[in-house]
Amino acid sequence: MIRKKNLIVGQSGGPTAVINASLYGVVEEALNRWETFGTVYGMVNGIEGFLNEKLMDMGRIDEETLSLVRNTPGSFLGSCRYKLPEDLTDPVYDKLFSLFHKYQIGYFVYIGGNDSMDTVSKLSRCAKKMESDICFVGIPKTVDNDLVMTDHTPGFGSAAKYVASTVREIGVDASVYDNKKSVTIVEIMGRHAGWLTGAGALARQFEGDNPVLIYLPETAFSIEKFLDDVKNGLEKKSNLVVCISEGIHTEDGTFVCELNSAVGEDTFGHKMLAGAGKYLENVVRDRLGVKVRSVELNVSQRCSGALLSGTDQREAIGAGAYGVMQAAQKPAEEVTGSMVAFERLEQEEYAITYVLRDVNEICNKEKIIPAEWITPSGTDVTEEFIRYAQPLIEGDVELKKKNGLPVFARRDA
Amino acid sequence: MIRKKNLIVGQSGGPTAVINASLYGVVEEALNRWETFGTVYGMVNGIEGFLNEKLMDMGRIDEETLSLVRNTPGSFLGSCRYKLPEDLTDPVYDKLFSLFHKYQIGYFVYIGGNDSMDTVSKLSRCAKKMESDICFVGIPKTVDNDLVMTDHTPGFGSAAKYVASTVREIGVDASVYDNKKSVTIVEIMGRHAGWLTGAGALARQFEGDNPVLIYLPETAFSIEKFLDDVKNGLEKKSNLVVCISEGIHTEDGTFVCELNSAVGEDTFGHKMLAGAGKYLENVVRDRLGVKVRSVELNVSQRCSGALLSGTDQREAIGAGAYGVMQAAQKPAEEVTGSMVAFERLEQEEYAITYVLRDVNEICNKEKIIPAEWITPSGTDVTEEFIRYAQPLIEGDVELKKKNGLPVFARRDA
Repeated sequence: MIRKKNLIVGQSGGPTAVINASLYGVVEEALNRWETFGTVYGMVNGIEGFLNEKLMDMGRIDEETLSLVRNTPGSFLGSCRYKLPEDLTDPVYDKLFSLFHKYQIGYFVYIGGNDSMDTVSKLSRCAKKMESDICFVGIPKTVDNDLVMTDHTPGFGSAAKYVASTVREIGVDASVYDNKKSVTIVEIMGRHAGWLTGAGALARQFEGDNPVLIYLPETAFSIEKFLDDVKNGLEKKSNLVVCISEGIHTEDGTFVCELNSAVGEDTFGHKMLAGAGKYLENVVRDRLGVKVRSVELNVSQRCSGALLSGTDQREAIGAGAYGVMQAAQKPAEEVTGSMVAFERLEQEEYAITYVLRDVNEICNKEKIIPAEWITPSGTDVTEEFIRYAQPLIEGDVELKKKNGLPVFARRDA
Repeated sequence: MIRKKNLIVGQSGGPTAVINASLYGVVEEALNRWETFGTVYGMVNGIEGFLNEKLMDMGRIDEETLSLVRNTPGSFLGSCRYKLPEDLTDPVYDKLFSLFHKYQIGYFVYIGGNDSMDTVSKLSRCAKKMESDICFVGIPKTVDNDLVMTDHTPGFGSAAKYVASTVREIGVDASVYDNKKSVTIVEIMGRHAGWLTGAGALARQFEGDNPVLIYLPETAFSIEKFLDDVKNGLEKKSNLVVCISEGIHTEDGTFVCELNSAVGEDTFGHKMLAGAGKYLENVVRDRLGVKVRSVELNVSQRCSGALLSGTDQREAIGAGAYGVMQAAQKPAEEVTGSMVAFERLEQEEYAITYVLRDVNEICNKEKIIPAEWITPSGTDVTEEFIRYAQPLIEGDVELKKKNGLPVFARRDA
């Protein structure tokens, strides 16, 4: 009798509203395929927790909790920001593979963004070197939608829906004193890619509706042009809503928020940004003398359960399940080192198929908005962008409520 | 034949998620009582717009738009922050009453907060002096819940639901790196009254859940005690969420945000606050050296259609309808100068009755959280507060959706 190999799943990087939907997809599919998989482990706090042998048996989670996991934002298993060394001869790899051996791991599924795909890439390359047959699979997630070789990423749709819905509400809020001129600057997540900021365009209910101006990191930002745009905008509409990406920067690459104050760096060397909206608020007040406020959308963009996109959640579950299915059905060497990706079908009605892509061609790259999806003025996205993003925010998810609020799953419950 | 008098309704002050529900209640009730009321006018941009004769005929709004108004956040009619002069012999009153005469106004309904009740008070006193029989009625609204002589105010329940739901999600987001200590400071609206900040307590799903610390403007704030509280909190829980009111202040009355930078004033002489969260974020980082971030909940608190409380919306509609009903059924002198208020029934199951209260005893006062509803530590609300606030966030509202987003009514549609 061949002993069944175990599967381990982890989550890494920043949370999204549907990273747990992917976890649910992985776990449900793996538990249903009990003929293939032995124990289904969850690593607590990603690869960093695994190194400390923080594991849990996902088969022991009760039915009700597992069904809540599907709708719970954030990372049920806990996350980490742990970067594996570039040098594949580093002793940490020996430690990891001896732990894989100890727990009889045959399948390693990692749900995350760019940096997590880097982990999948390194582990699968290291496995090849070590002649290990462990199958390493990546499941994408990122609100930033910046992974290459996939039509879009799970997490983006719900975040885009939150952004669009909130910008629409801010537009309503801004227009109540419509006999007075005002500017509202909404700062939206996105370091280098403007996908989420562009989704602000979905807020419009009619021609000329807010947001009137949208500034993306794909286009160089000029303070003087911005002030001209705002002045012109105020001639046509008394209450302007302006969407800006946190990562907007001047021609020489200086982030607008850096014009304000010092910034830090996170463990991956990313600049920690904050304050572009606040900075521009002060510029507008000083230079145009008009009523102005800034709103930073902040963490709710990536963790709002109240505004889940049904499409996004369905695809996130599907991505997790598809990864496990491929691992179960195909030889390890055909699946290891891949990420589950989405291909959009070329047809009128929106639909995708799931495919596997080489994770080495994905990690450490960034997909930005194509130049032709940004208007020549650099202050809006085109109809093509709208057609691309619109289907991703469709559909609602009914949440289980108690005392008027959504109930979320807890790992330690 | 006695010519029917017309009714005019206006909205004033900051928006809420249900100020339009009250407008809907007023308009529906008044249109249905066509035997009593002539034309039902809306004043565009409140009393300020009325002075410029900006009126609209509410009877001409199509059925579909009116039904959307019920679920649309913000002020459908537009708002103003116009303070009537204290001196009732000011010529603006003559102008107003001649306009009332011109448009045959017999009933004046004003939906708003403290400052709007001040307008109702002044107009009704002025009418008495002028021996006018126009009936002036106030319908309360304020997310701050700070009006006296009413159990609570329409607008608070939906804002409290937004706060509780968002704080719960922020707690989930904060806990994903649960192997690292972190502090998240959430800044919530409320100048002098901590009702909305206290509603953060409703976010808890279990004993010891976040938010672990809640700081209200009702209690003097000490930076040193705050740092001790945070230090102690981090010993029990690795990811602390702390709710603070924008209006927290030190013993001598200095707002914490004033420790940071200069603040402005609005037209009613209120201090414009911002930045207490940001200030404390920097204090925690400098003094405790722990990972910390601050989140300002901002305008979404008062304009989130996605998180309407069913109870709040039902009562907001009821408040508007009740005001009109009383005006229709009772002699003007019994109704004028009143505000519709809520009385909570003393019974197990939550229920209210509508009553009229003297607006002169309401305006320019503020209801704060009773001292006995705040824990002796000054860092939490008691079970009584929870029992008070819990029913107000119950129930959901199904919004009409198009392209994945709620559809809102437009005045100029």
